[in-house]
Amino acid sequence: MKEKRKPIMSGFTHILHGGDYNPEQWKDTPEIWQEDMRLMKLANCNTMSVGIFSWAVLEPEEGVFDFSFLDTAMDNIAKNGGKAVLATPSGARPHWMSDKYPELLRVLPDRQHALFGVRHNHCFTSPVYREKTAKINRLLAERYKDHPALGMWHVSNEYGGECHCPLCQAAFREWLKKKYGGDLERLNHAWWTAFWSHRYTSWEQIESPSPIGEIYVHGQNLDWKRFVTDQTADFMHNETAPLREMTPDVPVTTNFMGFYPGLNYWKLRKEVDVVSWDNYPNWHMPDSNIATAVQTAFLHDMNRSFLHKPFMMMESTPSLVNWKPYNKLKRPGMHKLSSMQAVAHGSDTVQYFQWRKSRGSSEKLHGAVVDHCGHENTRVFREVAELGGLLQKLDGIVGTMPESKVAVLYDWENRWALDDLQGLQNEDKKYIETTLKHYTPLWKRGVSVDVLDFHEDISAYSLVIAPMMYMMERETIQRLKQYVAQGGTLVCTYLTGTADENDLCWLGGLPAEDLKEVFGLWTEEIDTLYPEERNALVLPDGTKYAVCDYCEIVHPSTAEVLATYKKDFYAGQPAVCKNSYGKGTAYYIACRDTGEYVDVLYGELLQQLEIPRALPNLPEGVTAHVREGGGERYLFVENYNGAPVQVVLEKNYIDMETEQTVRNTLKLDGYGVSVLKEL
Amino acid sequence: MKEKRKPIMSGFTHILHGGDYNPEQWKDTPEIWQEDMRLMKLANCNTMSVGIFSWAVLEPEEGVFDFSFLDTAMDNIAKNGGKAVLATPSGARPHWMSDKYPELLRVLPDRQHALFGVRHNHCFTSPVYREKTAKINRLLAERYKDHPALGMWHVSNEYGGECHCPLCQAAFREWLKKKYGGDLERLNHAWWTAFWSHRYTSWEQIESPSPIGEIYVHGQNLDWKRFVTDQTADFMHNETAPLREMTPDVPVTTNFMGFYPGLNYWKLRKEVDVVSWDNYPNWHMPDSNIATAVQTAFLHDMNRSFLHKPFMMMESTPSLVNWKPYNKLKRPGMHKLSSMQAVAHGSDTVQYFQWRKSRGSSEKLHGAVVDHCGHENTRVFREVAELGGLLQKLDGIVGTMPESKVAVLYDWENRWALDDLQGLQNEDKKYIETTLKHYTPLWKRGVSVDVLDFHEDISAYSLVIAPMMYMMERETIQRLKQYVAQGGTLVCTYLTGTADENDLCWLGGLPAEDLKEVFGLWTEEIDTLYPEERNALVLPDGTKYAVCDYCEIVHPSTAEVLATYKKDFYAGQPAVCKNSYGKGTAYYIACRDTGEYVDVLYGELLQQLEIPRALPNLPEGVTAHVREGGGERYLFVENYNGAPVQVVLEKNYIDMETEQTVRNTLKLDGYGVSVLKEL
Amino acid sequence: MKEKRKPIMSGFTHILHGGDYNPEQWKDTPEIWQEDMRLMKLANCNTMSVGIFSWAVLEPEEGVFDFSFLDTAMDNIAKNGGKAVLATPSGARPHWMSDKYPELLRVLPDRQHALFGVRHNHCFTSPVYREKTAKINRLLAERYKDHPALGMWHVSNEYGGECHCPLCQAAFREWLKKKYGGDLERLNHAWWTAFWSHRYTSWEQIESPSPIGEIYVHGQNLDWKRFVTDQTADFMHNETAPLREMTPDVPVTTNFMGFYPGLNYWKLRKEVDVVSWDNYPNWHMPDSNIATAVQTAFLHDMNRSFLHKPFMMMESTPSLVNWKPYNKLKRPGMHKLSSMQAVAHGSDTVQYFQWRKSRGSSEKLHGAVVDHCGHENTRVFREVAELGGLLQKLDGIVGTMPESKVAVLYDWENRWALDDLQGLQNEDKKYIETTLKHYTPLWKRGVSVDVLDFHEDISAYSLVIAPMMYMMERETIQRLKQYVAQGGTLVCTYLTGTADENDLCWLGGLPAEDLKEVFGLWTEEIDTLYPEERNALVLPDGTKYAVCDYCEIVHPSTAEVLATYKKDFYAGQPAVCKNSYGKGTAYYIACRDTGEYVDVLYGELLQQLEIPRALPNLPEGVTAHVREGGGERYLFVENYNGAPVQVVLEKNYIDMETEQTVRNTLKLDGYGVSVLKEL
Repeated sequence: MKEKRKPIMSGFTHILHGGDYNPEQWKDTPEIWQEDMRLMKLANCNTMSVGIFSWAVLEPEEGVFDFSFLDTAMDNIAKNGGKAVLATPSGARPHWMSDKYPELLRVLPDRQHALFGVRHNHCFTSPVYREKTAKINRLLAERYKDHPALGMWHVSNEYGGECHCPLCQAAFREWLKKKYGGDLERLNHAWWTAFWSHRYTSWEQIESPSPIGEIYVHGQNLDWKRFVTDQTADFMHNETAPLREMTPDVPVTTNFMGFYPGLNYWKLRKEVDVVSWDNYPNWHMPDSNIATAVQTAFLHDMNRSFLHKPFMMMESTPSLVNWKPYNKLKRPGMHKLSSMQAVAHGSDTVQYFQWRKSRGSSEKLHGAVVDHCGHENTRVFREVAELGGLLQKLDGIVGTMPESKVAVLYDWENRWALDDLQGLQNEDKKYIETTLKHYTPLWKRGVSVDVLDFHEDISAYSLVIAPMMYMMERETIQRLKQYVAQGGTLVCTYLTGTADENDLCWLGGLPAEDLKEVFGLWTEEIDTLYPEERNALVLPDGTKYAVCDYCEIVHPSTAEVLATYKKDFYAGQPAVCKNSYGKGTAYYIACRDTGEYVDVLYGELLQQLEIPRALPNLPEGVTAHVREGGGERYLFVENYNGAPVQVVLEKNYIDMETEQTVRNTLKLDGYGVSVLKEL
Repeated sequence: MKEKRKPIMSGFTHILHGGDYNPEQWKDTPEIWQEDMRLMKLANCNTMSVGIFSWAVLEPEEGVFDFSFLDTAMDNIAKNGGKAVLATPSGARPHWMSDKYPELLRVLPDRQHALFGVRHNHCFTSPVYREKTAKINRLLAERYKDHPALGMWHVSNEYGGECHCPLCQAAFREWLKKKYGGDLERLNHAWWTAFWSHRYTSWEQIESPSPIGEIYVHGQNLDWKRFVTDQTADFMHNETAPLREMTPDVPVTTNFMGFYPGLNYWKLRKEVDVVSWDNYPNWHMPDSNIATAVQTAFLHDMNRSFLHKPFMMMESTPSLVNWKPYNKLKRPGMHKLSSMQAVAHGSDTVQYFQWRKSRGSSEKLHGAVVDHCGHENTRVFREVAELGGLLQKLDGIVGTMPESKVAVLYDWENRWALDDLQGLQNEDKKYIETTLKHYTPLWKRGVSVDVLDFHEDISAYSLVIAPMMYMMERETIQRLKQYVAQGGTLVCTYLTGTADENDLCWLGGLPAEDLKEVFGLWTEEIDTLYPEERNALVLPDGTKYAVCDYCEIVHPSTAEVLATYKKDFYAGQPAVCKNSYGKGTAYYIACRDTGEYVDVLYGELLQQLEIPRALPNLPEGVTAHVREGGGERYLFVENYNGAPVQVVLEKNYIDMETEQTVRNTLKLDGYGVSVLKEL
Repeated sequence: MKEKRKPIMSGFTHILHGGDYNPEQWKDTPEIWQEDMRLMKLANCNTMSVGIFSWAVLEPEEGVFDFSFLDTAMDNIAKNGGKAVLATPSGARPHWMSDKYPELLRVLPDRQHALFGVRHNHCFTSPVYREKTAKINRLLAERYKDHPALGMWHVSNEYGGECHCPLCQAAFREWLKKKYGGDLERLNHAWWTAFWSHRYTSWEQIESPSPIGEIYVHGQNLDWKRFVTDQTADFMHNETAPLREMTPDVPVTTNFMGFYPGLNYWKLRKEVDVVSWDNYPNWHMPDSNIATAVQTAFLHDMNRSFLHKPFMMMESTPSLVNWKPYNKLKRPGMHKLSSMQAVAHGSDTVQYFQWRKSRGSSEKLHGAVVDHCGHENTRVFREVAELGGLLQKLDGIVGTMPESKVAVLYDWENRWALDDLQGLQNEDKKYIETTLKHYTPLWKRGVSVDVLDFHEDISAYSLVIAPMMYMMERETIQRLKQYVAQGGTLVCTYLTGTADENDLCWLGGLPAEDLKEVFGLWTEEIDTLYPEERNALVLPDGTKYAVCDYCEIVHPSTAEVLATYKKDFYAGQPAVCKNSYGKGTAYYIACRDTGEYVDVLYGELLQQLEIPRALPNLPEGVTAHVREGGGERYLFVENYNGAPVQVVLEKNYIDMETEQTVRNTLKLDGYGVSVLKEL
């Protein structure tokens, strides 16, 4: 029997519910501070995130500190029986700091020195900024280390961006020296600098990519992006050092941002004790919620997979956001549904940006638990409070986990390489879209999935799906090979194994190295279709599925041909192949289908491989997930349709919200969700 | 009986007709100077604008002045019996000036220092430039103060743009100090700088908004825009001081630019004796001319309302312009129609850019009275001359005015706030488009409208229409309240009273403060629709009208529900409310309709309130307007259709062009216009 | 009997076949060097371009030279019986050079100093860079002047771009002083600086156009573009001087880029002995290949017309490129067809970028003869080898030429003026598209065409077609006049003769000067249509042809009206006129038709003028061209359809590939091409 994992905050065995709380914006209105505590209870909230962006209040002049507002806020939260997620304030600095130390403002890619403004506008290399952040973090830790409200550390906020200042250029060069063992010729090879006479003869010649310099050297771009991630992690390390020293038992996190391209979160996860992320899906798009639900589910799975334990949904909106092209209200029910989706996939929290709408500046129309009207008589407040009531019944879920027999591979560096790649369809290689197309059939069938990058251990999975695995190093090739040889089932596509870890194309025939044997074929060339063009893949029984964007021309050696192209000069040639290799099987889908074919293929594979599903026979737009541990199994059933549905059950359950027993059939309202405990 | 207003130029009781005249471009061809005077007579023109952009000729070297070309031009105009609108030359400077004083060239928002080029590229703070402009203006006034041709001053040209140089930064800080009474904490509150740690601890920290610094602080953006307007007005004040001193009886104007977003013309109007503006409508769009005619009518009404007296159409094109995506010829008749539209709305001039096409540079294909061929045998010349002939018969109209019982509110600062607002539909809040949608039903019915900003006296109007009145200060709230309490009829919409004058959201429930009582409701939240989405509002009799973009959810207290939503989760909830308050009535339209509903609503209100119309039963695409004064009433009937129409009259008139009596029915050609004097 | 021209490389009487070859990218893999020579033979290649972008290898440190890689490459090529097109390396510099001499990096239009990066990033004025390029060119010439592989010089690579540094500003001013004879007033007149007070009082005030300064002064923009071309030619002259001195018998070329807007190739051609260009058509667009084939044919004709002798196709791709939005594979057969198209129009080479795909950097997915797999067992390699086999049979074609009785005029400066022109349809004047629309009817009928600029001798042509001849100087006007007077047939359109060579509009009526007599009409105004609008031109028999974009209103004096407008206010007025003038005829097409009308018109004119055609009765999508010389005539028949066709022949031929006799009918596969020698 699997044990439950420990709760996020030691000894606080509840699902966390609360939000970003900025009482420093209301210093002149103490009645609002009081109201907040009354409303927090009414809303069934137990956790508030405080201190994000508070530096100007905490240190109004250099070296002059004033923690009084935070003292009060922490005390209030504790008195209310709640916990604080206490932030370090590095996401934005006071004016005086960049006035005195202008070098801590970023230099932009075109080498302009930024002015004070917005947030996250700091050089992550600057020694002064590192000193300043370490110092205030230490003061915060010293002051609150024994405070009963302190539940965890929220380090900075949504790390992101990059800096091109001389300090960063120097750090980049040092990073490169280390990576290439001090051998400039290794760098010249990796960046293929013989092309266009770019050969470096001195480390000092190296500059970060720039629109007024070089942006087309793929190896250089890759290394710069890697450096940015590493330097951000290093900056974070500097931030967390005093926290870990002073409060070794208080967990540390920083909030990730889903598919944010600028940071490889597989690296950054190593700096956190708990993964947290900010989740802002596009609910209520004109067509349906399914694509949104699928993408959000995938991101929850990825965030859970970073550390293979429950994660935190650190931000979400109780109603709408203010930065999308069209900012729609969540329909009634959607708030509970979308919050419970996070829990279903392994979140042990439902947290919001933001507790109370600010009066001014850019986010004043961003949704909040408490609106400008200031009272609780709003639909949004009621839905938050209702959700809070449900969460209070779910202490048992804390620490349980989904179990996955399927892994989908999605890799940040592969994405960087594809985004940078000049060729094929240049506007967008659609790596994420394609990965989601392969994930959708699993979601529809209530199959639990782990999302991994190319360097993770895959040996325990029955099925590994890795679309567009363009860039991979030799070690990855060997891992895939052994996985199949030892009995695994692997599905790859066109572009597999084209380039190595420096984005140098593999020589000697594709897919690279031993993959030709694993898939039993070699690939000769790839045709790109115009957006409106279609081909089809044809099964032996004549069934056809639409093909778009890419058609690779492949030559099987040992592979069996599962489908062929319908037309064009490669009509009749293989479009999908299957190869037995060692004890396992490798599928090669040589073209991009519009989604119907992979749905059928994965349906068959799930049956063949006897992959467990949370529930069979799910209606369209409905999915189900299981969390288990400590001998308990919880079933989440989610209806993303606006209309009610009925779902057939195979076991008996108790509904955690109504506390009623449920048998045979479950009825769900439009946007309804149920949490059922298996009896 | 209302008196006529005085003519624009003292003692010159004619409608002004003429255009921008640049003889300095033809210094080497004296025969063209002669031809211009012959052609001016042939074209029935009486007024030429001279000296715009002539600085390089007037002061070829620093301190060396040569007015000879202007002497000749002024003499020629006078000899021809005409008047000159004499320009100050600040719209563009000679090269030598920015060579010697580079600080007078603008600094761009990204802090790049502009090079010499284009026009309007001057720092409006620069002491040197102020000194130079004051000096040349004084010389012009001294030289021509008694010249018979001098009719008025055309100060600079189309003021616009902004400068971010250190001088302007310092002036901005001084402006802020003054506004906030030297209290930085008041600024911190107004700009809500507790958000993102932006709190200022010194005035010196403040910078203008910049894409490489801060652009998201709404209070800061608003104050910067206000400063730009005030500094422009101050620069203009500096320009006009010597003119007013030397020629106290010669009126001063500067040409405005319609909806130009960069300047709040309600401020700038205080610097002029007569309002003038440049009018370039998009006639002959593929669908119809109605939307163009409506927008142009609205702008004429606004320009007349700035000073509540006849205004000048300072620029318009006799044929086409050269800067639109597609530059079409005016169809035969359209020149007269569009020129008389200006007069119908209160213009006492029809003036052109430009008299004669330049041979080179960027505007050489812009329409002109005289084409490159140089002779009068062109359609354009003939239409100008024909119009001039008609204008010569309209001396009686000079000084008459329309009378309006309806005011539409349109406010520059509200527009700035909406443009800046992050939320709802982010691409475009459609403030102007929506205001025009509310104005269209009045235009179609021949109702005269004044266009006011939020600070004007509205007590004399029977009906006040104020769409999307998002930002308003307490004083405005009180003005609206008293207007209704004392018997007025007010129509507002979704978003009313959301933020105060610093764009800080009002607390305590919306619409702000007492407006909840005035409208008898409070508003909870606002839903945004995708562009292709539609809801509907349903009247009690079941009639439906399409709703787009926004649906606000409102809760009536005392208000009567006039219409409800047809669908979505707020189906059946109020979409339009009406509230009796004091002696008056307040309407609240909670959603944006596609235009059909407001057409019906205003049709009913006009009847109920007995608002006068120029003519009843106007055909589609036809409107009518009245100017009156000194016991005379002139009716303008305008046909924006390409096909002829018949219009039913209720009185007897004399046609000012044909001098025939007109009874019962008026026939108008396609693009026809008639000016009728009531008998 | 016309003689054949000399072969490009003296004594090498073969069609050149080969590609850009970069062995310096494979310095660590000598086995690849060996393979390349084996594969070169297998591919039937005889010419390799070497040394492009090799500077960092040739001069790794300042003054330290290492030609060893080039020695080996040249020796290998010679041993293989081939020839080298040896490049000068100025297209990209080593890092050390811009480190030491930063002034040789470009300054961008906004005056930012570029960093090291990409290619072609050099100041063309910099004395240091000129010294460095001259020096290495001299060393190359000294070293290889007697090498048996040296066939010709490939100077730099795709010259392009511009620099705005102080050195270039000074050079621009000198260029202007020379052009205007030191008289600043002549410049002031030409740039019409009286407009917007732009008058220059010192040469030092002049700056190149800049987005932060002036970009709207058309005369200035024109002169800047002329200067850029002249300065590039001057830079090239400096490059070629040592080559011409050391190897007077080795021809010099630089590769042009089709319609590249930045350089007037009519000027640059004077620096080359042989014209070469890089050809990358968009084959296999969704609709058909005809538009692509027409544009490519036009460019081949233009490149042949530059020097009126066989040219080189220096670059083309064997399969696909990597920089288009969608990069499709050439369908089987298309490689031979598109290569033979070049030969049919006068190319004596088929050359590729690139011989072997690079492993890394931006062009690694660009098509090549040898793919990353490294072997010859690919479709692309087989098609290249097959084409090479055919070319080996075509020695007889070397030096033959097409004969043209039709000239189409296309002029770079006219294009610059139209691109800059503010007015009409501002987004795109469609000069190239319109020129191609007039060229298409000739292509469809197998008519050989020379493409000339406005300054070439046209006296020998039976028909001259000159669409949108907006800008022309007096000399050109006179040339057209005399051409018609002496019996020529001239076809012009709307906008003819609007501006002079400084883009100053002609005064006194359009078309300019004597052209009114030549065409027997004057033009009054021009109407612009919206993209979706259509008018029609109507022939006397009632036939109608669609008209789009522009309708000019013209007044015939002596001209005969061939067609009138169908609608709008100019309905019934002339749309097409024909005028007898002297011994010739001038046609004036006053509107833009959608292509159907000019097809009919040119069909008739070709018959009337008895213009020879390669073959009559060509099927849709098929064209034919003839090369002749030394008493031999070669017929090329090209099928751009995917489906096979049959073509009727009028003579007997021998097929050069099959060596079979062909009579009566020729069968061509889809994308088939045949080269037939007339018996």
